[in-house]
Amino acid sequence: MPDIVHRVGIRSTPKKVFEALSTTKGLSHWWIVGTKGSAKQGRTILFGFADMKVVESKPNKLMKWKCVRGPKEWVGTELTFQLKATKGETVVLFAHANWRKATEFMHHCSTKWATFLLSLKNWLERDEGRPAPYDVKIGVGD
Amino acid sequence: MPDIVHRVGIRSTPKKVFEALSTTKGLSHWWIVGTKGSAKQGRTILFGFADMKVVESKPNKLMKWKCVRGPKEWVGTELTFQLKATKGETVVLFAHANWRKATEFMHHCSTKWATFLLSLKNWLERDEGRPAPYDVKIGVGD
Repeated sequence: MPDIVHRVGIRSTPKKVFEALSTTKGLSHWWIVGTKGSAKQGRTILFGFADMKVVESKPNKLMKWKCVRGPKEWVGTELTFQLKATKGETVVLFAHANWRKATEFMHHCSTKWATFLLSLKNWLERDEGRPAPYDVKIGVGD
Repeated sequence: MPDIVHRVGIRSTPKKVFEALSTTKGLSHWWIVGTKGSAKQGRTILFGFADMKVVESKPNKLMKWKCVRGPKEWVGTELTFQLKATKGETVVLFAHANWRKATEFMHHCSTKWATFLLSLKNWLERDEGRPAPYDVKIGVGD
């Protein structure tokens, strides 16, 4: 099954990157303003357009979600953020996996994920996050 | 085999988007400064770090390349830019296909391709391309 994958290097600590991924406040700074729910393992994060169940949470190392409500193509997909400390930065390896088909919407989501991961980087490095609805627009209707 | 896929919508005509993909001058504005060679079907585009043979070129519709020299993981991969005119914009569906493995370098290239496709969009819409070496950096050593 097709996957979306990305990698960014962030000049910050694994602890700070993990905080940005594992708290609703952190997620609000770079992905979706007003994120609610809980980002603890076994709980559900409410992003408004989608709900994500936290399948696995390893402090400073890994965050894995399963989409349990949201756009039809997203339901059942899994999102993983894997962190690695290296050479003065924290590398984030990202995957949005288990899409049923490589649809045009999946292509769109791949590009959007890149902009959001750069939003995460820019927020942590220089306080310049671009969470939705202030996100980088990549086409009409986005 | 894993693929990188992306989608951007560009407020420009298929003709102008195709020009940016099918001429060395156009490619120099958004991907790599100083692109040489020829982007005509059957010829080879010289990007410096890699050479791409133009496998298929359908004016205003499609551009398909095969990497014939470059980073080891790129050689033999295929790159497709498919254009569609719709709702006041030209949609570009991009794929960098036939990677042998979903390596960390592939994750990196996926994120870089998003930044370059946004460079293409920004160049055509407001003359703000970010071709290498002036590209958006996404980590240490990039």
